[in-house]
Amino acid sequence: MREVCIIGVGMIPFGKFPEKNIEELAVPAVLEAVDDAGVPPERIQVAYCGNVYAGNCPGQRVLREAGMSGMEVVNVSNACSSGSTAVRGVWNLIAFGVYDIGLAIGVEQMSRHVSGAIPLDENDLETGQGLNMPALYAMRARRHMDRYGTTPEQLALVSVKNHEHSVHNPRAQYRKTFTVEEVLESAMICDPLTLYQCCPTGDGAAAAVICAREIADRFSDRPVTIAASALLSGRTNSEPREFSGSELTVRTARQAYEMAGIGPRDLDVLEVHDAFTIGEITHYENLGLCEPGEGGRFVEEGHTRIGGKVPVNPSGGLLSKGHPLGATGVAQMAELVWQLRGEAGPRQVTGAKVGLAHCMGGGIGGVEGAACAVHILKR
Amino acid sequence: MREVCIIGVGMIPFGKFPEKNIEELAVPAVLEAVDDAGVPPERIQVAYCGNVYAGNCPGQRVLREAGMSGMEVVNVSNACSSGSTAVRGVWNLIAFGVYDIGLAIGVEQMSRHVSGAIPLDENDLETGQGLNMPALYAMRARRHMDRYGTTPEQLALVSVKNHEHSVHNPRAQYRKTFTVEEVLESAMICDPLTLYQCCPTGDGAAAAVICAREIADRFSDRPVTIAASALLSGRTNSEPREFSGSELTVRTARQAYEMAGIGPRDLDVLEVHDAFTIGEITHYENLGLCEPGEGGRFVEEGHTRIGGKVPVNPSGGLLSKGHPLGATGVAQMAELVWQLRGEAGPRQVTGAKVGLAHCMGGGIGGVEGAACAVHILKR
Repeated sequence: MREVCIIGVGMIPFGKFPEKNIEELAVPAVLEAVDDAGVPPERIQVAYCGNVYAGNCPGQRVLREAGMSGMEVVNVSNACSSGSTAVRGVWNLIAFGVYDIGLAIGVEQMSRHVSGAIPLDENDLETGQGLNMPALYAMRARRHMDRYGTTPEQLALVSVKNHEHSVHNPRAQYRKTFTVEEVLESAMICDPLTLYQCCPTGDGAAAAVICAREIADRFSDRPVTIAASALLSGRTNSEPREFSGSELTVRTARQAYEMAGIGPRDLDVLEVHDAFTIGEITHYENLGLCEPGEGGRFVEEGHTRIGGKVPVNPSGGLLSKGHPLGATGVAQMAELVWQLRGEAGPRQVTGAKVGLAHCMGGGIGGVEGAACAVHILKR
Repeated sequence: MREVCIIGVGMIPFGKFPEKNIEELAVPAVLEAVDDAGVPPERIQVAYCGNVYAGNCPGQRVLREAGMSGMEVVNVSNACSSGSTAVRGVWNLIAFGVYDIGLAIGVEQMSRHVSGAIPLDENDLETGQGLNMPALYAMRARRHMDRYGTTPEQLALVSVKNHEHSVHNPRAQYRKTFTVEEVLESAMICDPLTLYQCCPTGDGAAAAVICAREIADRFSDRPVTIAASALLSGRTNSEPREFSGSELTVRTARQAYEMAGIGPRDLDVLEVHDAFTIGEITHYENLGLCEPGEGGRFVEEGHTRIGGKVPVNPSGGLLSKGHPLGATGVAQMAELVWQLRGEAGPRQVTGAKVGLAHCMGGGIGGVEGAACAVHILKR
């Protein structure tokens, strides 16, 4: 297996752009990534495009408008981890020598397709019982509160922290701070989750140029190594009726840590799938940042703020940066690359050398069959 | 690069099954392929699922119902070549040593999503001018008639031939013969293309177990080698306003022939993207079976019938076997495997040793940005 690195990233500011199609969303991100990489566009041999809603050949559409045509293009979807799946797909092909340089694109136009919670499949047992994503996460939160004594204030603190981070990210969809009280007093979506504890829908795009390490120096003087890439399917929950853990994240993270030869204590910065506040808390535990049940206290003690011992979601996370499904996983790469290159400005995690990105495909009614991706980046 | 082979295939009879969801369509095909391969399901390390319309994580849904969970699962789409893209994805990962055994799934539930011609994107220039797939192919047919003297009867003969083949395929959606007159007198869809010259919409699924050659003998005594796999994007038409050729198919086929170290004269049997009769005729030319402009005469002279010098679409092709988008490319693999193993019954191409499958993603308004996949199989 060859060492693989990211030599260029791009991302548009996330937001609501119902007037823009996917080409208009993604082309600026692609051009920014290619320019950042210093790679002549014709050197890019393969592109994977993560997208959920756009339909017919989004990758080819975007590349045509970017003036790039002729290469192998694969459109991938894995729900919320579609963008990470695109990164993983290109990583595979470069790590194992199929190609030398590839492009991962993530793009989503949600404004035209989704209003409110993302639709689940009508065949799901859970959906038939009236559940949707906020409700499933609310059950996780209730279970976590019941089992571990996690408090509503601890949940709210995830939102407070990520919104504080977002103020320093000019590409975040929302850039406004809230107090714990404001978070708890915002509209109740699904008890105990209030509006500011649920990620928004929105539109966005991101791109990353991925390259074999052995030729990266020809183009870039600041490559960031992808030390691990893991993508697995499995159960979202650790066991039936046990909503507070995720065997899938635990198993995927284990594979990534082994591949990178590191553990959670070696991480300097993380971008984690915080679609809802409880998600970030459980993933602290699933990713090994703290013990099971300790997630609420972990955020309360400030460990995951910028300046804390292991900052999580310096970008503002899905909660404030936004979560255009296909774009999210690639945008996580962009944030980590900027952090590891020391280019994150006022949200810079000082001296960050190792970062982890975690994305979780919404799965099938929230119970089984989801996709989880974990990438570890190093400079 | 390692040698890769197919050790098991499965396919349900294609048809219209509006009452079935994608799990119900695909699970029998998956189980048939796994059984045919003789591989314990837990040995399968990765699955790529080709699908266009099903939405959230079709591959994980199908595998959950098939009792298989935990592996890397990637859902891919490339319009009409989505199934071929799934095969290509797994081939890549095995050829370059990421995994040893994988599964390509193709599935489409069209009855619930499509009525009449498949919808194109409203942003396409061509769509804005009122064009759709039958209209685009009709323009190709008109151009071919104008430039090369191809006749309506020659177009009709493609349909006559493929429907004759389909009578011997118990898995074909339609199994009925037609005369040239009947084809020409069927309802006019878009002049010169009549109803029986357009592939039907329908539902279906297929699966293939793909394995590193070096371990295939542990499971199967009749592996079929994938001698080449090529997937590219590019222009559907050879040049602007020149609808009779496809630079994309020419270029993809060239890559596949080079990889396999063979040429069109070495082929014994082909499964070709005959979504419309003119498609098969132009692809004879694009794939090098005959000279540009000779496609009409080539079918008229009987070369591509079973018993002719290079039978094309013994399965009945998209025109009669059906074309559930995501399923088609994998179903082509199933047909070639049966042909090369000598198990095709009354539609067997005698002594077939080398087969080619060609699939064409409908592209973007028919002009640029399409996907084309060519696979060459050998026994």
